[in-house]
Amino acid sequence: MRRWNGWGEESTVVALPAHGGQFLAELIGAGQVLPDATMEQVLATVPASRLVAPHDLISLDAEVRLRHARGQSLPDWLAMREGCFEVFPDGVALPETATQIRELLAWAQQQDVILIPYGGGTSVAGHINPQASEQPVVTLSLERMNKLIEIDEQSLIATFGPGANGPQVESQLRARGYTLGHYPQSWELSTLGGWVASRSSGQQSLRYGRIEQLFAGGSVETFAGTLSIPTFPASAAGPDLKEILLGSEGRFGVISEVRVRISKLAVEENFYAVFLPDWPSALEAIRTLVQARVPLSMLRLSNAIETKTQLALAGHPKQIVWLERYLALCGAREGKCMMTFGVTGNRQQNALSLKQAKHLLKGFGGVFTGTLLGKKWSEGRFRFPYLRHGLWEAGYAVDTLETATDWSNVDHLLNELETSLRTALADEGEQVHVFTHLSHVYGEGSSIYTSYVFRPGSSYAMALARWKKLKHSACQAIVNNRGTISHQHGVGRDHAPYLPVEKGELGIAALQALSTHFDPDQRLAPGVLLTK
Amino acid sequence: MRRWNGWGEESTVVALPAHGGQFLAELIGAGQVLPDATMEQVLATVPASRLVAPHDLISLDAEVRLRHARGQSLPDWLAMREGCFEVFPDGVALPETATQIRELLAWAQQQDVILIPYGGGTSVAGHINPQASEQPVVTLSLERMNKLIEIDEQSLIATFGPGANGPQVESQLRARGYTLGHYPQSWELSTLGGWVASRSSGQQSLRYGRIEQLFAGGSVETFAGTLSIPTFPASAAGPDLKEILLGSEGRFGVISEVRVRISKLAVEENFYAVFLPDWPSALEAIRTLVQARVPLSMLRLSNAIETKTQLALAGHPKQIVWLERYLALCGAREGKCMMTFGVTGNRQQNALSLKQAKHLLKGFGGVFTGTLLGKKWSEGRFRFPYLRHGLWEAGYAVDTLETATDWSNVDHLLNELETSLRTALADEGEQVHVFTHLSHVYGEGSSIYTSYVFRPGSSYAMALARWKKLKHSACQAIVNNRGTISHQHGVGRDHAPYLPVEKGELGIAALQALSTHFDPDQRLAPGVLLTK
Repeated sequence: MRRWNGWGEESTVVALPAHGGQFLAELIGAGQVLPDATMEQVLATVPASRLVAPHDLISLDAEVRLRHARGQSLPDWLAMREGCFEVFPDGVALPETATQIRELLAWAQQQDVILIPYGGGTSVAGHINPQASEQPVVTLSLERMNKLIEIDEQSLIATFGPGANGPQVESQLRARGYTLGHYPQSWELSTLGGWVASRSSGQQSLRYGRIEQLFAGGSVETFAGTLSIPTFPASAAGPDLKEILLGSEGRFGVISEVRVRISKLAVEENFYAVFLPDWPSALEAIRTLVQARVPLSMLRLSNAIETKTQLALAGHPKQIVWLERYLALCGAREGKCMMTFGVTGNRQQNALSLKQAKHLLKGFGGVFTGTLLGKKWSEGRFRFPYLRHGLWEAGYAVDTLETATDWSNVDHLLNELETSLRTALADEGEQVHVFTHLSHVYGEGSSIYTSYVFRPGSSYAMALARWKKLKHSACQAIVNNRGTISHQHGVGRDHAPYLPVEKGELGIAALQALSTHFDPDQRLAPGVLLTK
Repeated sequence: MRRWNGWGEESTVVALPAHGGQFLAELIGAGQVLPDATMEQVLATVPASRLVAPHDLISLDAEVRLRHARGQSLPDWLAMREGCFEVFPDGVALPETATQIRELLAWAQQQDVILIPYGGGTSVAGHINPQASEQPVVTLSLERMNKLIEIDEQSLIATFGPGANGPQVESQLRARGYTLGHYPQSWELSTLGGWVASRSSGQQSLRYGRIEQLFAGGSVETFAGTLSIPTFPASAAGPDLKEILLGSEGRFGVISEVRVRISKLAVEENFYAVFLPDWPSALEAIRTLVQARVPLSMLRLSNAIETKTQLALAGHPKQIVWLERYLALCGAREGKCMMTFGVTGNRQQNALSLKQAKHLLKGFGGVFTGTLLGKKWSEGRFRFPYLRHGLWEAGYAVDTLETATDWSNVDHLLNELETSLRTALADEGEQVHVFTHLSHVYGEGSSIYTSYVFRPGSSYAMALARWKKLKHSACQAIVNNRGTISHQHGVGRDHAPYLPVEKGELGIAALQALSTHFDPDQRLAPGVLLTK
């Protein structure tokens, strides 16, 4: 059963090891545990639905409404743990076909209802939260439209319902010998339609591309009609309508069908870990490697403090001691940075890619440690979000944020971002533990993915106030230092106020013109992406 | 000196060899030579400019106006050869800075003048032709804004003026050890701004990407203000404004600065030719090769009739006889198809890519001929447009058109397209020589690039009437058979009527909404891209 007040399946538990708790206590102080609400308590707060004439496809069940009321941002987490949800949708629509989506749009227009398109509910930026409003609000969940509809095996295109989540996508493709290869950290729960709507990026985007490269066409139901986007390998026939949809976050329409570019399953895949002696050499090494176009499928780099944190929080301290001794002998001591890379493909190509990567990294003092840590990364690639539970139970709040910038600015922005978080609670005398990795690298630059751990204080109100300071401070650091407000999480409500810095007033007005074109009454997810 | 009535530099002459003329005469009949007009004759037809208060940056010179009046479509060619230009711009603006572009926009608004943004004037789809109108028309040429402004060597981003043409881009980059790697066939004359505005694709897009992947950001001057698009390696912050600009064909604004992703010059580059025994095996071979992700930098495949035509029109018949004998011995006889591929990069990777490509192609009966023909392709890669002159002087008209579709549809669409052209003049009892290659391949599908040679008839009017039949027939075949109306030439005026089939009425309306947003008076290139 999926958790109603946190991440993932109830059966998956990732606890913080005792030595990890000590590590954090030394850095930022002893944990502060806040009491959790029960589901019964929250159910008692769900108000009667305001829907006068609910459509047959809409559930008014209190638990269903509760389970669709919040995403996975830290404010969502706090609201769920405290049991203070504030606003619930008046109903949850569960269509099974495009025709039913169109029916629901017509119904919403007729009944003057606001609709919130909903995929896996994994937003960390406030995409799917109903707001207090005079009009009733219905969450339109696409979870029942999760089937593989068709594969064009010559063109390597698969057609899916928009509500297929990561495991549903991969299991249906793998049964036929194919893969999409799109693995965001939210993969277990997030959906194809959500990936398209929010411009998602997967951990192996170096090989498979971001969702922008994987999305081949499909259909969107809008208040102005159905927009069908045919599949072409490429086209010069005017601006690409796919790109208008990518990142539209539900403001233009409800995605009813998604066609994606798939790949045959690779013969071989391996992940490796290399330790670089310090951050400057690690940063230059990773840039050189990606700009040399060595065909890797994954490449990420933790900074020194993240490397240290990962080793400290790992569940096998004895092994880590031996690893540290070995690394120190080879020159990777205090300040070392862990790089992980993957090769995916045929054996000959993988062997050459590995050889070239090793050779190049050796030139930067890299200590190669083989596949052991790479395998660990691969096995635990979707476990990080579960760690929020382990940390919370130990009395710590954790959140992440991310951006991307050109290589010439990566180090500067990373420092500004980490500093903004590290000092955001200084007025309260609170320490914040901040660490970063580069998770998606490109010839031009890199994403920057920063995690921060802080103490929630003595109440939920205090925890939220601390988060707001941290978040605003970090977002300001990003937009004032040439970063994009999001590389992979999207805009939602939380990032919308910062978006004009990069889009310009004119760009925002253009997006608003498109939103008005497709949704004249502004009935779809108002306030998401664009503040109006 | 650039030709005023045809392609390229006057000093470059590509004649049709005598045996090439015989080859065509046997296929479609003896050539029909039409008389050319002189420039003096045309200059005498340039009317007085209608500009009441011309801006200082605008030239009213008759020859300058003549030289900016037509592009390179076949109707343009016929108009230029006949000397019947019909409409000339009332002036040609030659700004040198973004500020001057903004001045010109303000002036155009004040004077109620239509503006046509102009790059290299190489459009083959009627992008830059002034139309008869009550308002005066000024062509806004960006040719003076052709400088490399800045290189960010860490991020591999170069900033250029929008008017830099292919040689200006490459020579300024190569002097610093870099390349853009973007080589459309029009490279000698077409410009960076034009590539962006029309979603251009270069011959080595397999390595470097299309202009969509190379375009990193820049500035556009619009009637609603300046749109500055910052550079990010990737972003999830809403729809990508770059993608709204790509393919906008001057309808939204005038591009004043272009930032592009560049590469370090590769250590080694080679091109190879392989002959496949027949079209079905060749088609499967090229699809298999690209879907196997072998890192090639170029991959193209001529169908049997193009292969035969290329060998027949080549300038060295004795060598060709020996080549044919060798190929026949190896199993590539009548019906054989020539594939050309390139490897670009470091020696180890190139060696492996070559080995893997050869091995795979051998499985399809491919006969490898080494670098000789590949080198010839590389040396002559920009010469094909000059052949229009050689053919014209021999009494033949030639035109090309192109599309792209998914692999499962390539063979079908190619046949429909070729047949539509081959039979388009049947009512006049005229033969059309039609041949095709796949010039840009993707995992999902391929572009289809078709050339057709026909006799112009006894007059320019007859030649134009024939072209119209051919063009309409082919465009119908494309849009009725799941092809995009253009893979690399853009929409312009010639393809605009066919665009709604793929964009949908709703998609067209969305693009129109953007055009109205940026250019409320519809003063920029009206009728281009969108028929309104």
